[in-house]
Amino acid sequence: MNDLVSMKQLSESEILALLDRAQNFETYGARELPKKYTVSNLFFEPSTRTKTSFEVAERKLGLDVVPFESGLSSTIKGETLYDTVKTLESIGVDALVIRHPDVGYYNQLIGKTNISIINGGDGSGQHPTQSLLDLYTIREEFGSFEGLNIVIAGDIAHSRVARSNADALTRLGANVTFLCPTEWCGEFNAVHEWDENLLNSDVIMLLRVQHERHNEKSIFTKESYHNQYGLTLERAKRMKENAIILHPAPFNRGVEIDENLIECSKSRIFKQMENGVYVRMAVLELILNGRN
Amino acid sequence: MNDLVSMKQLSESEILALLDRAQNFETYGARELPKKYTVSNLFFEPSTRTKTSFEVAERKLGLDVVPFESGLSSTIKGETLYDTVKTLESIGVDALVIRHPDVGYYNQLIGKTNISIINGGDGSGQHPTQSLLDLYTIREEFGSFEGLNIVIAGDIAHSRVARSNADALTRLGANVTFLCPTEWCGEFNAVHEWDENLLNSDVIMLLRVQHERHNEKSIFTKESYHNQYGLTLERAKRMKENAIILHPAPFNRGVEIDENLIECSKSRIFKQMENGVYVRMAVLELILNGRN
Amino acid sequence: MNDLVSMKQLSESEILALLDRAQNFETYGARELPKKYTVSNLFFEPSTRTKTSFEVAERKLGLDVVPFESGLSSTIKGETLYDTVKTLESIGVDALVIRHPDVGYYNQLIGKTNISIINGGDGSGQHPTQSLLDLYTIREEFGSFEGLNIVIAGDIAHSRVARSNADALTRLGANVTFLCPTEWCGEFNAVHEWDENLLNSDVIMLLRVQHERHNEKSIFTKESYHNQYGLTLERAKRMKENAIILHPAPFNRGVEIDENLIECSKSRIFKQMENGVYVRMAVLELILNGRN
Repeated sequence: MNDLVSMKQLSESEILALLDRAQNFETYGARELPKKYTVSNLFFEPSTRTKTSFEVAERKLGLDVVPFESGLSSTIKGETLYDTVKTLESIGVDALVIRHPDVGYYNQLIGKTNISIINGGDGSGQHPTQSLLDLYTIREEFGSFEGLNIVIAGDIAHSRVARSNADALTRLGANVTFLCPTEWCGEFNAVHEWDENLLNSDVIMLLRVQHERHNEKSIFTKESYHNQYGLTLERAKRMKENAIILHPAPFNRGVEIDENLIECSKSRIFKQMENGVYVRMAVLELILNGRN
Repeated sequence: MNDLVSMKQLSESEILALLDRAQNFETYGARELPKKYTVSNLFFEPSTRTKTSFEVAERKLGLDVVPFESGLSSTIKGETLYDTVKTLESIGVDALVIRHPDVGYYNQLIGKTNISIINGGDGSGQHPTQSLLDLYTIREEFGSFEGLNIVIAGDIAHSRVARSNADALTRLGANVTFLCPTEWCGEFNAVHEWDENLLNSDVIMLLRVQHERHNEKSIFTKESYHNQYGLTLERAKRMKENAIILHPAPFNRGVEIDENLIECSKSRIFKQMENGVYVRMAVLELILNGRN
Repeated sequence: MNDLVSMKQLSESEILALLDRAQNFETYGARELPKKYTVSNLFFEPSTRTKTSFEVAERKLGLDVVPFESGLSSTIKGETLYDTVKTLESIGVDALVIRHPDVGYYNQLIGKTNISIINGGDGSGQHPTQSLLDLYTIREEFGSFEGLNIVIAGDIAHSRVARSNADALTRLGANVTFLCPTEWCGEFNAVHEWDENLLNSDVIMLLRVQHERHNEKSIFTKESYHNQYGLTLERAKRMKENAIILHPAPFNRGVEIDENLIECSKSRIFKQMENGVYVRMAVLELILNGRN
């Protein structure tokens, strides 16, 4: 595998192999790769979690990380993404992690350069390492995916996470239900209100309300969204004993989730972030060792 | 010691132990720490000196430094500082150096996360490593603090340095006098004009006029400030033979100090910067080794 | 040699020695320098190629690279370039790569600090490592410079590359002809249209139309520039069989060069970028080892 741009590339057994490898990193710690590879992180959208998570994973694997500041690069002289990537390939960068606002930006790159691309999020498209860390966190909790009931609640249409997770979780045997306002369903089937059945799920995964992607004046106030679609304290009390709460973060406290639930005993939100480093090490290792 | 946010945390013997350790780094060079720690520098205000000084100190100790660009992080998606710090803790960062415009920003962090915080300046609050490097530079010159006469001149009310130094120097046995315009005294007692007594001090420490923190139209022109409160060439000539000039920089040439004094024989301004790396290595070492 | 700010500093034999050393890096790979030097890259203008090329070269030599973000530094508090450089010298940085919009910015630095300066481009002045990589690419192709016919076409007056290359290529025995619109000749002699003689050159080096340096409304449309001065498909067909096309990039596709020529068999544009890393390693090695 030369690139990872979408969960759709990965078979079930490939997904499980990546999760196993990530588990190995969690259990035994990281080891530097046998060769000194050079990578760079191209983030054309703001990010704390994904970028720093990759930066940590890269250092733990002993990689050389070449800084790239999108605001200071030649893209502001009008250089195309393709030309920037060809440039980085020419100067000896082996792999790029790219976040870019355009859905499918990688189609202009894959197969046209010899540099490996890891998709760190393409607009409302895919975000495969986020999906892998969600899967990792779920499997760590329940041991397998078979028969698990999972709710993904929120801004489905604009969410890379929903898109990446929907397919993978279903293929691995889980039952996924989407919950969202009618206006935010996109091409997905969804239910539009919480009921006992949903609250009885094994995993409740909340998505961030992406204020920055809604340019119309929002149809919801924070309070009305929270009351209708958010995980309120009252709803959380009706969850199953062993159920867990996931959120890709950053979260809007009091909107998609009650502030007091973020670090509650059911929440795995910060464990997800920790797990992100392990799965990103697994992905980087797989792709870079595959270049030999 | 898990964090260093204020000079008030440090006893006199702890201060002297840090200075001794810094001295050791100056004399014998740096050694990498026994464990590979991961740190990040979160600067929410502009900085050359403090940030690059920490960056150099961190590399000399063999640390993994994870870049953090405040302008590209999720803070601009509305993430709180607490959530950013919890995120960095989750992905495996051991210690953060933080500069932030809010006085006491660290109160929302200390004791609530397991990550170590080194305060790189909080608004007009504390700046402990700047204070330590000032102390180091003074002790390097005079051998001890006992009985030294020290003037701190300038924008006392807005100065982190005045605040951090005032307490420590007095505790270590020096006599500190503040000199400033009436409007810029804050809660401190100060004198308002230079006299022979002041010019006869062992150390004259000048502070930067912080144009960016005065939103009212300044009450001084550059010239009038220089003439009344600055270290002019004429005043410098009346200083004691072995006295030294300190300034935390960046300086406004011709405002708080005459341009020709910046690199004069009495000036230790660039030596202070060099010393900053040694004291920051000492602080990082103390805090990181204490995490084992 | 403590600094490299201009090609004029280098004798012909020094140029050839640097190219030989770069060749050695290309053939045998990089080796870490015997001492751990600290460097920083100060880019006050946007750059992808030059900055990342230096960043890669520095890592391959095992240097400690201290990040410097011009937008977050104290220069926005009004600090002079000299003070910034003195600061970096004081905290232990051995060498700086600087790109700055002011022609000759380095005159205020050289001889006044002990830090080594490598000029990464000064306004429309010099850009010696770009020139060295052009020379390297030409020599790699033709074995020597003696008697080669070379056209440099484009925005001569505003081009650091034209200026740095003109002198060096001539000294090394090549015949250089400039081609440009009358308005863009600066102090250079130039011809103003393509003819068979020019198209029969060994090397056609195109320069970027620097839209950001022309504040008057451009006298050319993209199409009219391309048709009169650009390398069109039709002109490329009339080139000699073994001739090559160079461009320092970033390029404006369809302006100075037809889009389909960028990766054609005559183009060495991406090879130039690769070669940039080798010559920058050679320059860094020469300057840093010279500090011992």
